[in-house]
Amino acid sequence: MPLVFYDCKTAPSPRRARIILAEKNVPHELVEIDLRSGEQMGEAFRAINPGATVPALKLDDGTVLTDNAGIAVWLEAAYPDPPLMGTTPLEKADIATWQWKVEQEFGMGVASALRNSTPAMKGRALPGPHDYEQIPELAERGMKMIGHFLDKLDAHLESRDYIAANMLSVADITGFVFVDFAKVVGKRPTESHANIRRWHASLAQRPAFQL
Amino acid sequence: MPLVFYDCKTAPSPRRARIILAEKNVPHELVEIDLRSGEQMGEAFRAINPGATVPALKLDDGTVLTDNAGIAVWLEAAYPDPPLMGTTPLEKADIATWQWKVEQEFGMGVASALRNSTPAMKGRALPGPHDYEQIPELAERGMKMIGHFLDKLDAHLESRDYIAANMLSVADITGFVFVDFAKVVGKRPTESHANIRRWHASLAQRPAFQL
Repeated sequence: MPLVFYDCKTAPSPRRARIILAEKNVPHELVEIDLRSGEQMGEAFRAINPGATVPALKLDDGTVLTDNAGIAVWLEAAYPDPPLMGTTPLEKADIATWQWKVEQEFGMGVASALRNSTPAMKGRALPGPHDYEQIPELAERGMKMIGHFLDKLDAHLESRDYIAANMLSVADITGFVFVDFAKVVGKRPTESHANIRRWHASLAQRPAFQL
Repeated sequence: MPLVFYDCKTAPSPRRARIILAEKNVPHELVEIDLRSGEQMGEAFRAINPGATVPALKLDDGTVLTDNAGIAVWLEAAYPDPPLMGTTPLEKADIATWQWKVEQEFGMGVASALRNSTPAMKGRALPGPHDYEQIPELAERGMKMIGHFLDKLDAHLESRDYIAANMLSVADITGFVFVDFAKVVGKRPTESHANIRRWHASLAQRPAFQL
């Protein structure tokens, strides 16, 4: 039984897993779930992932992985070549550190800005089964976080081709996906972010990063 | 040159790294940084970690790791026995998934509740170099997140001795540290959380988990 990857072409979260699958050339069956029509809430998909989220990766023993943390680690262990989480202890640490910064300082900024301001997400300010009211001040804080992180990342990339460990890694993949997705809240790397723009343009040429 | 671990006995974040060091029996020199007196802001410590945070781990080549993500991954790679992040791909995925849930749903809840309400953290609602104003509604949201997560964790531990992969892992360590730390915002596992209390009591007997 091949791996089955449940994807949604328009969403940032499954895009992270999709790029890893492509960079590692992992054979898999692809199932597109249409989030815009609410297909993830339907009985068919909830039988696969009761949490009703993508990405989901069904393994050949029937186990379904349902978050990027688990999917990335599983793919790295099962398909180690090419490594995207480092080989030496120091590479692994540098990549984990930057993956964390990208997720906490940038991804959380974008999520805060979007989920606490979009009318369609009223009462749904956090993902998951519980409802949380939007907090407009948190959307503002998210915008500030994005600005601070882009400045920091640009300085970091001044002398680097990749975010961590001098190699293509999950940190680049996560960063690239969030840079693209930040457009939904009107944030793009500006002219003062020449290093980010060079890094982004270089990654965008890789087939795995194309939409 | 031995590893040097910069710790603070009273803080939750370095406690996570301290438990990993102890469970793996990693030889190291210990330097206590007194956060209460602001020692982390002093010149001596900022020469080691300009970010002025603990934990920090100085490696024998002089590299300093300054966050739990990097420290955990480095220790797992350099001192693989006993494994705390899994051995098989499936164990690794399960542990990464639960580590993420514990950090995002529980740790973030505690941090939101504390940092957005404590008078001493006015203007410092997020860690790091930038100042962010407190958002009282976010403190409330944090309290709700903690409650939801404790209920979920208790149900999850119903038939389990450990949080993930049927083995002691970083997910248990992180969860244990946050359960203890959640007391600062008045949240403790209640009588309805019998499974958490059994799991916590069992871990508390391990020397590495003792303060």
